[in-house]
Amino acid sequence: MKIKQNQIQDTNKINLQSHQEKFDFLSNSLIKTGTDVQSIVNKLKDFQVAIPSWALGAGGTRFGRFGFYGEPSNLEEKIDDIGVLHSLTQTAGAVSLHIPWDIPSDYAAIKEKADALSIKFDAVNSNTFQDQKDAAESYKYGSLSNTSKAVREQAIQHNLDVIKIGDKLGSKALTVWLADGSCFPGQNNFQTAFQNTQDSLIDIYKGLPDDWKMLVEYKPYEPNFYSTVIQDWGASLMLANGCGDKAYTLVDLGHHLPNSNIEQIVSILQLKGKLGGFHFNDSKYGDDDLTVGSIKPYALFLIFNELVYGMENNPQNPDLAWMIDASHNVKDPLEDLIQSLEAIQEAYAKALLIDQKALKAAQLENDVVKCQEILQGAYRTDVRPLLAEARLKAGGALSPIEAYRSLNVRSQLITERGKHTVATGL
Amino acid sequence: MKIKQNQIQDTNKINLQSHQEKFDFLSNSLIKTGTDVQSIVNKLKDFQVAIPSWALGAGGTRFGRFGFYGEPSNLEEKIDDIGVLHSLTQTAGAVSLHIPWDIPSDYAAIKEKADALSIKFDAVNSNTFQDQKDAAESYKYGSLSNTSKAVREQAIQHNLDVIKIGDKLGSKALTVWLADGSCFPGQNNFQTAFQNTQDSLIDIYKGLPDDWKMLVEYKPYEPNFYSTVIQDWGASLMLANGCGDKAYTLVDLGHHLPNSNIEQIVSILQLKGKLGGFHFNDSKYGDDDLTVGSIKPYALFLIFNELVYGMENNPQNPDLAWMIDASHNVKDPLEDLIQSLEAIQEAYAKALLIDQKALKAAQLENDVVKCQEILQGAYRTDVRPLLAEARLKAGGALSPIEAYRSLNVRSQLITERGKHTVATGL
Amino acid sequence: MKIKQNQIQDTNKINLQSHQEKFDFLSNSLIKTGTDVQSIVNKLKDFQVAIPSWALGAGGTRFGRFGFYGEPSNLEEKIDDIGVLHSLTQTAGAVSLHIPWDIPSDYAAIKEKADALSIKFDAVNSNTFQDQKDAAESYKYGSLSNTSKAVREQAIQHNLDVIKIGDKLGSKALTVWLADGSCFPGQNNFQTAFQNTQDSLIDIYKGLPDDWKMLVEYKPYEPNFYSTVIQDWGASLMLANGCGDKAYTLVDLGHHLPNSNIEQIVSILQLKGKLGGFHFNDSKYGDDDLTVGSIKPYALFLIFNELVYGMENNPQNPDLAWMIDASHNVKDPLEDLIQSLEAIQEAYAKALLIDQKALKAAQLENDVVKCQEILQGAYRTDVRPLLAEARLKAGGALSPIEAYRSLNVRSQLITERGKHTVATGL
Amino acid sequence: MKIKQNQIQDTNKINLQSHQEKFDFLSNSLIKTGTDVQSIVNKLKDFQVAIPSWALGAGGTRFGRFGFYGEPSNLEEKIDDIGVLHSLTQTAGAVSLHIPWDIPSDYAAIKEKADALSIKFDAVNSNTFQDQKDAAESYKYGSLSNTSKAVREQAIQHNLDVIKIGDKLGSKALTVWLADGSCFPGQNNFQTAFQNTQDSLIDIYKGLPDDWKMLVEYKPYEPNFYSTVIQDWGASLMLANGCGDKAYTLVDLGHHLPNSNIEQIVSILQLKGKLGGFHFNDSKYGDDDLTVGSIKPYALFLIFNELVYGMENNPQNPDLAWMIDASHNVKDPLEDLIQSLEAIQEAYAKALLIDQKALKAAQLENDVVKCQEILQGAYRTDVRPLLAEARLKAGGALSPIEAYRSLNVRSQLITERGKHTVATGL
Repeated sequence: MKIKQNQIQDTNKINLQSHQEKFDFLSNSLIKTGTDVQSIVNKLKDFQVAIPSWALGAGGTRFGRFGFYGEPSNLEEKIDDIGVLHSLTQTAGAVSLHIPWDIPSDYAAIKEKADALSIKFDAVNSNTFQDQKDAAESYKYGSLSNTSKAVREQAIQHNLDVIKIGDKLGSKALTVWLADGSCFPGQNNFQTAFQNTQDSLIDIYKGLPDDWKMLVEYKPYEPNFYSTVIQDWGASLMLANGCGDKAYTLVDLGHHLPNSNIEQIVSILQLKGKLGGFHFNDSKYGDDDLTVGSIKPYALFLIFNELVYGMENNPQNPDLAWMIDASHNVKDPLEDLIQSLEAIQEAYAKALLIDQKALKAAQLENDVVKCQEILQGAYRTDVRPLLAEARLKAGGALSPIEAYRSLNVRSQLITERGKHTVATGL
Repeated sequence: MKIKQNQIQDTNKINLQSHQEKFDFLSNSLIKTGTDVQSIVNKLKDFQVAIPSWALGAGGTRFGRFGFYGEPSNLEEKIDDIGVLHSLTQTAGAVSLHIPWDIPSDYAAIKEKADALSIKFDAVNSNTFQDQKDAAESYKYGSLSNTSKAVREQAIQHNLDVIKIGDKLGSKALTVWLADGSCFPGQNNFQTAFQNTQDSLIDIYKGLPDDWKMLVEYKPYEPNFYSTVIQDWGASLMLANGCGDKAYTLVDLGHHLPNSNIEQIVSILQLKGKLGGFHFNDSKYGDDDLTVGSIKPYALFLIFNELVYGMENNPQNPDLAWMIDASHNVKDPLEDLIQSLEAIQEAYAKALLIDQKALKAAQLENDVVKCQEILQGAYRTDVRPLLAEARLKAGGALSPIEAYRSLNVRSQLITERGKHTVATGL
Repeated sequence: MKIKQNQIQDTNKINLQSHQEKFDFLSNSLIKTGTDVQSIVNKLKDFQVAIPSWALGAGGTRFGRFGFYGEPSNLEEKIDDIGVLHSLTQTAGAVSLHIPWDIPSDYAAIKEKADALSIKFDAVNSNTFQDQKDAAESYKYGSLSNTSKAVREQAIQHNLDVIKIGDKLGSKALTVWLADGSCFPGQNNFQTAFQNTQDSLIDIYKGLPDDWKMLVEYKPYEPNFYSTVIQDWGASLMLANGCGDKAYTLVDLGHHLPNSNIEQIVSILQLKGKLGGFHFNDSKYGDDDLTVGSIKPYALFLIFNELVYGMENNPQNPDLAWMIDASHNVKDPLEDLIQSLEAIQEAYAKALLIDQKALKAAQLENDVVKCQEILQGAYRTDVRPLLAEARLKAGGALSPIEAYRSLNVRSQLITERGKHTVATGL
Repeated sequence: MKIKQNQIQDTNKINLQSHQEKFDFLSNSLIKTGTDVQSIVNKLKDFQVAIPSWALGAGGTRFGRFGFYGEPSNLEEKIDDIGVLHSLTQTAGAVSLHIPWDIPSDYAAIKEKADALSIKFDAVNSNTFQDQKDAAESYKYGSLSNTSKAVREQAIQHNLDVIKIGDKLGSKALTVWLADGSCFPGQNNFQTAFQNTQDSLIDIYKGLPDDWKMLVEYKPYEPNFYSTVIQDWGASLMLANGCGDKAYTLVDLGHHLPNSNIEQIVSILQLKGKLGGFHFNDSKYGDDDLTVGSIKPYALFLIFNELVYGMENNPQNPDLAWMIDASHNVKDPLEDLIQSLEAIQEAYAKALLIDQKALKAAQLENDVVKCQEILQGAYRTDVRPLLAEARLKAGGALSPIEAYRSLNVRSQLITERGKHTVATGL
């Protein structure tokens, strides 16, 4: 299924005048305070977030999974789904593959399909947290950190294979998320596990093409419930530094202990030029993988404030790999992703509204009240017209959820695919 | 110091036209979607939050306190400060006294002063967490829960005294916050402490005038760091039920374990007709007592969603006692309170924007995406023009912080009072 | 596979003398301080903990599951496994069934088998968190709390069916754990969900035989990640009270927010006569379902201190249903359960060592240091000889893990069952 | 007041025989399993923990402080108190000064007094979280991180002064705990604050004598409640690395987010040779500063397991500065410290009992059950006889708390000093 440009234009007609009025009013009001509205709209238009190939079917928990109708059952259909998202939102112009779930059978055909939908191949993800059928070694007790050399070598080789697959598709980064750790005190020797991980990562790093990055993800717990080898940004950074200049830390919003100040982590990593990627989701308790912006939108805004600051002031830090990493347990995955993209754009737009000059002046005067006024002033602004304008200019839908529903996308997908398909990897 | 009506009108002049345009645009846009804007503005105008008498000076931590210039040094000056707040915001029309810090020397004079400033006397607060000079018994090991009958009786008597003081001023509620608990396992017998507390509360309850309420606050920890007798809403409710119909649970936003779903607590208490009061503040880690809305504004909105729902659907629940309970460690206390009042009104306004009918319909269809759209739609709306309109109609300032600064309130207070005054109780 | 009495006696021979010396030394030392050692040994001997039928196979997480060889594949084999546990430890004399995973095909045969192994049928567990094949209604959006009457009725009927099954086997309690809740703000109306749950529970309660109990479990989150209908003990107690005298609260150690004081909850519930059951496990982060005592053994001891106190001082509270509820992700499930039983007995024994009279005296004098000395004195005692003695007297193994290994139980199970069996429900 | 050697011997007489029996029995039992008991006793004897000069009076919270009778009111009396502790426990042979609270007036006299009591001067602590009378600049908005150069310079100079004071007394380390951070989003520029802190630390580092260490403490929150500049070990390590080889990270047990795996942090820092010091206390909620070992003794044991491992296997890491950092709110401070020292020794002794060789073998076989058995086997051992033996050999009390009470230390202190003295700095 593919949404045509004119279908979107049709759905836009109804709201077009209302949008224009709102945009004009907001725009005028912002311009009066010295905001460069056009620049913000352009930045929003350019901002693209990768969709992971595993996020297009319903997710679940250890207590079970409730399926969703019309799920994509192969890579082609997954890319079709991202095509739907991108045509509506114009901000989902990339896919992030998970290997071995999404190994293309025909590389040329897949690339062609993605190209046709303006979808790029972003970071590729390896999987050493599950055993694959017929694999010689098991990851039950760890992969890159395992005490067994044979297991480590299998896991290293898998990562090298993933790089090769990504390379054929035009990816430029490998994301390593390691579930390695322990469930009970004493199970692991922390130092051995860390050292093994460092050595394994170095071996993978050696296989990285020159123009690639390695993104090292951290997470405090789950699926291991006593310790995780790469438990926080400090451990990730240490390992990345141990590999070399092309290795970076990747921040996933859900991978933190309660009450962590994530925006500060993001800021310091950028200062050191070591923030490489970002996974979006939201959570109330742990790694809940809820829709980004659905629980703590202000925290997301504060994080974007740091990201915007870094993008403007930290040339030592590279461009970031952006990706949504949520689990769609009770929503239509595509609608959930549309809501995610909207929330990300919203936080980005509001962060762009912050008057950095005035903020800096207030900070220098320790005018804490003023600092808060400036941040809240930007945050309280209703930026939806800016987002709609950016989408409109790029050929997307004024209101993507409404368009998705009025175009009956899901029921068409069900018709095409059937009800009880299951996405690979789920 | 007293702000005159015409001073406020003068400060409003600059922004009046801009406000009118914004309000009209928003109002028209909301009316199109079926919102009764006038009703919302009226509700905002009527909403009044009590200022606690201890919140007008700088706060501190166990590591020290940095004073603020021009602090009020007696009850009269505290009421003057609230008068300033109320004249600017028109939403601070009540004071909540803390006894023994604020015992009036001349009741008639204090009432007259408060009346002149349109300030009512809301719930009175007892203090059995500190020893008073020349007190016969110490609260070091608890007050209402103490194993010593003499200590309990002193604490009960103090609460009865507080009721009498409040009664003379027109208060209609007693708030009991109990620090009682233990620092180490084994220190307390949980059952004895609970039973003693219940018995003591019943004794206080007997002294409650017929038209009064008793509000029982809960808190998981601090200043005791192992256990607290009234550790959560369940314990508070049990104790309130043990007293009688006039006893209710009071919710302080900062008094919860990490990740608590406070809005659900609020909702269930209202269902049972047992939510009596509310203390506003915000926090990232514990009972941080930061400015309400400064850290988790969306959570505040979700709580207000439940409060609005309860006010409309739960006649079994009484009117609530609203109070700000924050600690002003690095801001001018008056500016901090203005920001607090603004954040409260904002959350209230946005909650009022929720289309409850549409929400209910979406819930019945399990249309989770729609439910989220409805909530986020209300939340993303910039309601500042509604707040400004409500203030304007009531005679307040369009922009209270700006007015406070342009009227040089703090420097006048310093001139009147001197720099190094210290608020009673700090 | 069945372990014979003489096999155990053989394994005991090696350590018998050493055990006798240790027990005598400890016993003499305790008797000097006034401890009734014999009474403690007898209490340990009598203490029986139910094994849930789902805990005999390897567990997993949402990221996958690593199987374990020789898992039981039907109810008969599960009871065999518990028979092994019980013969070695003499403390696992009960099974807790999960329906529909463990519906007996032949009730008489199953009862006979259990009788032969001295295993009783403890509380039965219903499952309304997963959809069963061919079920008319789905629990995706809740079961007892669902807005749809048809779904609620299906869930009620399932619980009534579970009671009937349990009744045929001699069970005397139904445990209701409800996953119901929501993943996103707005998805649920808290009050409707609560009220529906209350009504549904009342309907189930009506079907409860006179000598049965209903145990209402609570949990703050997972598998729902925004709200859970029965989120804490306060909500559970409210619902139990709404049903009647035979409804109680059930505490699962892992079902609490970070830093909860569980021992206080346990204590207050017993004071009110409303603690009905207990699920053992341990955790560092969330509901990690680790081996009880493996992470926070002192907290377990403090909880047992309250349980012992309640059993001795709270006749208003009924006998408790004890059960282990852990997930065996990286250990042999049977070894894990042996370690669990040992940790429970250890905490119980240490709690029995507390000199309650001296503790009370120290509490009355506010001698906090002494209170701590008394608790730590009991906790620091090495009680393993008491546990071994209790097992020895009951016909169990001095060292169950050693005996399990030296008797090659797992390899025999693999021989009997094959490697790749999967326990029902996993 | 000074406890004489023969007084201690007198108190030991009563328990001497009982101790000897217990020690012999345990010793024999341990020797059979291959444990070198004598070596463990010697290590315990050698292990010395510094007492901070501020911990000898009652502590408090932001809600107030309940004083304790007979508190030391000057440095001489504080050292007397530590002398009492050391004579009883033989493990408190060092003091850690807090400047400016404890600047000696007569260095020679103080050194002589300390020498006579066998007390060394361990790390000195600077204070830039409170304003000192007549100080030119205020630390309200930060010290080493402040945007004002004048403030930073004052704070740097203070640290240099502290080094000089420590140098005169024989200290070899400076501990920098920085309260710097922010209370509200936007108040600070994270990068500027971090960079200023790094630059300030480098300036202090330049003033460090060659044989000194600089210990950089981290803490996630309090007294700032939104962000802290040195929020975790990653930030501390980054700053230490930015200073040079003599700068290290200091771990305070209470300075972590909920559920942190502290033992892993400790282990990795030792692997990198960067763990410099350790502050002991315990907590249930935040930085509660309770008696070490009173809440989570097993976690303390796990940490000591890593420390013991590091001391034996990480020559790249220096000797550690050990210190107790607790707040004595409801106990006699000296008794509280005795309980702390006992808990530390207990954890150390149990960690020394771990059979590292067997543990390593079990880890290599992924025998998780065995790993747990080994750790729990050591932990479940009652090591009190080992501790008593170590004290006895060193001339201390078999049972320090009992001796302290039977010698009426506190009442003598009250007689000497009066009831209402207040320790400097409180």
